[in-house]
Amino acid sequence: MSKPVATLSASNVFQRISVLGAGAWGTALALNAARAGRDVVLWGRNAESLDSISTKRQLPAYLPGITFDQPLETTTDITEAADADCILLVAPAQMTASIAETIGLYVRKGTPVVLAAKGLEKGTQRMMSEVLADYLPQATPAILSGPSFAADVARGLPTAVTIATPSAPLADKLCATLSSQSFRPYASTDMIGVQLGGALKNILAIACGIVLGKQLGASAHAALMTRGFAEMQRLALKLGARSDTLMGLSGFGDVALSCSNHQSRNFAFGFALGEGKALSDLMAPGAKLSEGAYSARVACELANAHGVELPVAQAVADVLEQKDSIDEAVTKLMSRPLRAESEVPSKPNS
Amino acid sequence: MSKPVATLSASNVFQRISVLGAGAWGTALALNAARAGRDVVLWGRNAESLDSISTKRQLPAYLPGITFDQPLETTTDITEAADADCILLVAPAQMTASIAETIGLYVRKGTPVVLAAKGLEKGTQRMMSEVLADYLPQATPAILSGPSFAADVARGLPTAVTIATPSAPLADKLCATLSSQSFRPYASTDMIGVQLGGALKNILAIACGIVLGKQLGASAHAALMTRGFAEMQRLALKLGARSDTLMGLSGFGDVALSCSNHQSRNFAFGFALGEGKALSDLMAPGAKLSEGAYSARVACELANAHGVELPVAQAVADVLEQKDSIDEAVTKLMSRPLRAESEVPSKPNS
Repeated sequence: MSKPVATLSASNVFQRISVLGAGAWGTALALNAARAGRDVVLWGRNAESLDSISTKRQLPAYLPGITFDQPLETTTDITEAADADCILLVAPAQMTASIAETIGLYVRKGTPVVLAAKGLEKGTQRMMSEVLADYLPQATPAILSGPSFAADVARGLPTAVTIATPSAPLADKLCATLSSQSFRPYASTDMIGVQLGGALKNILAIACGIVLGKQLGASAHAALMTRGFAEMQRLALKLGARSDTLMGLSGFGDVALSCSNHQSRNFAFGFALGEGKALSDLMAPGAKLSEGAYSARVACELANAHGVELPVAQAVADVLEQKDSIDEAVTKLMSRPLRAESEVPSKPNS
Repeated sequence: MSKPVATLSASNVFQRISVLGAGAWGTALALNAARAGRDVVLWGRNAESLDSISTKRQLPAYLPGITFDQPLETTTDITEAADADCILLVAPAQMTASIAETIGLYVRKGTPVVLAAKGLEKGTQRMMSEVLADYLPQATPAILSGPSFAADVARGLPTAVTIATPSAPLADKLCATLSSQSFRPYASTDMIGVQLGGALKNILAIACGIVLGKQLGASAHAALMTRGFAEMQRLALKLGARSDTLMGLSGFGDVALSCSNHQSRNFAFGFALGEGKALSDLMAPGAKLSEGAYSARVACELANAHGVELPVAQAVADVLEQKDSIDEAVTKLMSRPLRAESEVPSKPNS
């Protein structure tokens, strides 16, 4: 397969990239890596989907209406996919552990594994980097997060994200590896902040969807976003995130994207709840995944353990566990939009 | 006219309220004050509009489809309106000076004048509180700002805003005065932060409208919001705003509202530009006001004087002065979404 000539020297980028997970986001990231000039293999389980990707350049179930501008090589052989200079692991958060375990024997020591799922593991309360450390201790973990819809990236629309890894030079190299004309990664070393921004915004997006689905208006929605972003920051700072990370693409930016757009699965899930759809239908097998539905309770558990209040996440978790009706949740979400302006954790400069 | 019984003692609220300006926002705030149990007089110039408000309980040109749940007393006599315990001045920012001058002789010493316009005065670079100090030095200035669409407030949908005045007890009293079942004001003493948040977000809303009008996608829009909110904070902090104010309702909250909603005049104005509408048509007399179109250049002048870079506001100002085409502006807006995550002015906590 012919590839564009890479514009950076081989030592500045990882050339052979595997993307594990051929859903919307994995396929979009694989397309972008190909645009960036990398040699890409996309792994998935569904041979029919992969065939559509490689022969028709389409994935109608996940990226409807888009014909890919790049050819993509695909495989169902995970051992083949594990043999790469750099791996993008794009499974849903609750499945990251099982994929990491599956490839454990095949990943070489030091291989960067870029986690692109946003979530906290139910039951264990682990961040994705902690899951990786448990199942793939030989890999070097990195996180890709930020305001990005798969369809935008697949179409080649301008997108900016954050890539975090503990080593700044490695973060720069990963950014160079995945940087294309339309996709701009920014380097960070704040693994905790980048992961928590991505995980916690999903919960807020559900709450925002509920309020707009209930037709409470844009003003109510903006007040809830303000309150929810403040509580996200409270918990994330307590867990070691950096404030500038939370104010950047993977925090503020992803909140801005996810909390106002029907393209966000979490927002759409909340909106459907607000409109009166049954929770059982929305959580049925085969329904589109709302990661925040899993992370909400985990966030509350973490908050409880660290003495932080998360009234918005609590309201979402209580609805999802059928402890509260939607009307009760809305009352909780709207009754106290902010205790005071000073509820926000930023430090005044005067 | 019968009024609901006030729930707070007379000493905790200002009972006789005048609202100057019978457009969408002034009328909505007057309705809310009536709901809060206040005695309200609404002043405007257009007798026909006022007649519709007082007799039909409607203002179709500004608040279409809404029938008011409260009767409102109206007047065209500004000397009558100036005689109140508390005045809400709801003129557009560029007209605030002329209204303040007009009522100068009639306002008693110490009367709180709550400014509800969001903008910076063209030519003089003055904030609204500075305009008031020049024309109504005997008044006590206050600012009402935050994420609030007039239609939401008129309908009685949940809304939360900030009221700032230099005296904390007065801020509390103004909040009590205007607090109703659906409208929740929060007290602040940060006059500069509350005003700058409201003025600067209008400019960012125009930029966001341009990018979405150009169909660059939600991911590009979120990256621009992140960059624009960072530059708003840079300038506002330099001018003396408090960081927690910028992260609250009148900063973050109003950015969230205005930068994603067609109900925002500034966003809609930018969207029309992005779609290819002619600037001359959008700026024609009678067109809906986009306050950010005036404030953009003022913000750039202030930034220049204080050694701060505002690339987003600069791009907006250059388009409005026809120094750049829309395509050139979009390139500037999107080519460098963030220099780095650390461009954001918040201080890391580690």
